[in-house]
Amino acid sequence: MTYVLPEKLKDLNPYDPVTEDFRIHLDANESFCEVPENIRQEILNAVSNVAFNRYPDPYARKLCEKAGAYYHVDPKLLTAGNGSDELISLVVPYFLDEGDTMLVAVPDFSMYWFYAPFHKIKVESLQKENSMKTSAEEILQRAKEKNAKLLIFSNPCNPTSLGIGRDDIIKIIEGTDALVIVDEAYMEFENENNSVLNEVENYDNLIVLKTCSKAFGMAAIRLGIAVTNEKLTGILHAIKAPYNVNSVTQAIGCVLFSHPEYLASCIDALKASRDELYQAVKAMEDKKTEIETVYETSTNFIFMKVKRAKEVFEALKQRGISIRFMNGYLRVTAGTKAENKEVMEALWELIQ
Amino acid sequence: MTYVLPEKLKDLNPYDPVTEDFRIHLDANESFCEVPENIRQEILNAVSNVAFNRYPDPYARKLCEKAGAYYHVDPKLLTAGNGSDELISLVVPYFLDEGDTMLVAVPDFSMYWFYAPFHKIKVESLQKENSMKTSAEEILQRAKEKNAKLLIFSNPCNPTSLGIGRDDIIKIIEGTDALVIVDEAYMEFENENNSVLNEVENYDNLIVLKTCSKAFGMAAIRLGIAVTNEKLTGILHAIKAPYNVNSVTQAIGCVLFSHPEYLASCIDALKASRDELYQAVKAMEDKKTEIETVYETSTNFIFMKVKRAKEVFEALKQRGISIRFMNGYLRVTAGTKAENKEVMEALWELIQ
Repeated sequence: MTYVLPEKLKDLNPYDPVTEDFRIHLDANESFCEVPENIRQEILNAVSNVAFNRYPDPYARKLCEKAGAYYHVDPKLLTAGNGSDELISLVVPYFLDEGDTMLVAVPDFSMYWFYAPFHKIKVESLQKENSMKTSAEEILQRAKEKNAKLLIFSNPCNPTSLGIGRDDIIKIIEGTDALVIVDEAYMEFENENNSVLNEVENYDNLIVLKTCSKAFGMAAIRLGIAVTNEKLTGILHAIKAPYNVNSVTQAIGCVLFSHPEYLASCIDALKASRDELYQAVKAMEDKKTEIETVYETSTNFIFMKVKRAKEVFEALKQRGISIRFMNGYLRVTAGTKAENKEVMEALWELIQ
Repeated sequence: MTYVLPEKLKDLNPYDPVTEDFRIHLDANESFCEVPENIRQEILNAVSNVAFNRYPDPYARKLCEKAGAYYHVDPKLLTAGNGSDELISLVVPYFLDEGDTMLVAVPDFSMYWFYAPFHKIKVESLQKENSMKTSAEEILQRAKEKNAKLLIFSNPCNPTSLGIGRDDIIKIIEGTDALVIVDEAYMEFENENNSVLNEVENYDNLIVLKTCSKAFGMAAIRLGIAVTNEKLTGILHAIKAPYNVNSVTQAIGCVLFSHPEYLASCIDALKASRDELYQAVKAMEDKKTEIETVYETSTNFIFMKVKRAKEVFEALKQRGISIRFMNGYLRVTAGTKAENKEVMEALWELIQ
């Protein structure tokens, strides 16, 4: 007999991470900070104490204690996931029904709407102007018009590198009866006063996402955390796979959140690199019309509009430097001093 | 404004793993084998080489090479997941549409149908008789009647501990145009000739699931693997979260699959313990009518029907021994010699 594939799986357009081997990787907004020897030793000790033959704690309670202390949030409001990715993959199809509408303002992180078509969820895209900005009013109006049940956006935004002020976020949360997900993956690089993490108990419709992959330099362990009120946390705990986050990631996460001084030093180093990269590109922008716009950055990367962007992107690849090409724009992660220097020199040559 | 929770999230009935602390855990079909010192050292070396600040390989290619060699399957037919759990959570809602029917024969692993109601997928349950057996014919007939689009079952079965012969599995795969998922989490404890792993390329509708959590004693790292034909593998790769399996689990999995001799020794030890436990309970069954049925076991646990099962279960808990109570039946994982002895002595007392 013949198995017929469901229609929705016939033409897949998967997320396309860079898997080729480049000399310099500035394409995934990873941290260039390598774990220092003392923390590495603590990590190895923690791993060595893992009972490998036993299932993980389903609720990652020790980890949530440590993370809660770091974030100044009650640990019982935390849900650990395999990166924010897993948490996004849960919220979209589980909090929405077939035929419901979710609203996104594009460009934004593409995984937000990746899952929608498999579940016949409608995606309403509010296209940002060249400024890459939207307003709370515009978002709320569109949400109302389209009866959106979910608003999801990153703040600061990947890929535009721009932050949205706290007042605007609060206005959005208060102005809609939709669920609002604020992905704060890059908040550590912004003025943290713009975070709404401490607001989760004040609203019935707010979920904030945090990650260890960016500022904390731990992309390898895949640890994301959803923070929300007690009711929604109960639901997240119930819909996730029972033992979703493995014991090793839990153990390493505990080490990480026990070292706020180390995390602060990572953030400082990444911000300094980002500022350096930004200044260098701004200086080029002043001299060369090939660089049309360099957006202000509240993240660990810069985002810019460049003439012949695809060509520049390909030429950098030829030189062993991987950045992201996105629909006419370029996104470059802040790297080490040497990496920044090399990518800037290459860019300068290419736009002559 | 007020956020109204979707109807489907209002009355959740989550999977309920045992999280209390017991002296003896025989409730989760974990392995009692602890990782020996040489393997533990290799694991630590592998972890110490992880580039923590970099994202994992999205396709876990090195791991799939190692696992493919171990399973004698082309690595390009493998998809790694955070335990089989993640793979199940993908296949059910992504390969089925709202209104579609999936067929299960109960009792079986409850996570198979856990996700269905959130996606308005109908679950058709074929109830096993007291023998805990079904036939290929019965399954195929019911699948046809109900126009099932997915058949999913464990072989050998959790919780019944019974295996289904290879011929019957092939009959099922060939006799339906539904997708067939065979979860072989416990196959290492069975006659491996009953595995259909080497059949995945011969069918357009077969996915086999393997796990490191049972026979290999690695529940902590959450590593499951889906094995299927190239077309379906491409789809699994596309629908999974891009960086689903973290680098540490990938690294530890590589160590594990490089030691077939160690894995074989684990399997031998677990089978010996399982046989010992089975013989002990059979001996009791002969003497005491309180034990109504002890099912043959092809797994690392025993399954039995016991009078006053709930009472026995609770009394064991009082003694610090955790097993599973399932709708009038008891499921006991094979443990160390000391654990088996203690649980059997307690059971013997309780059924006097």
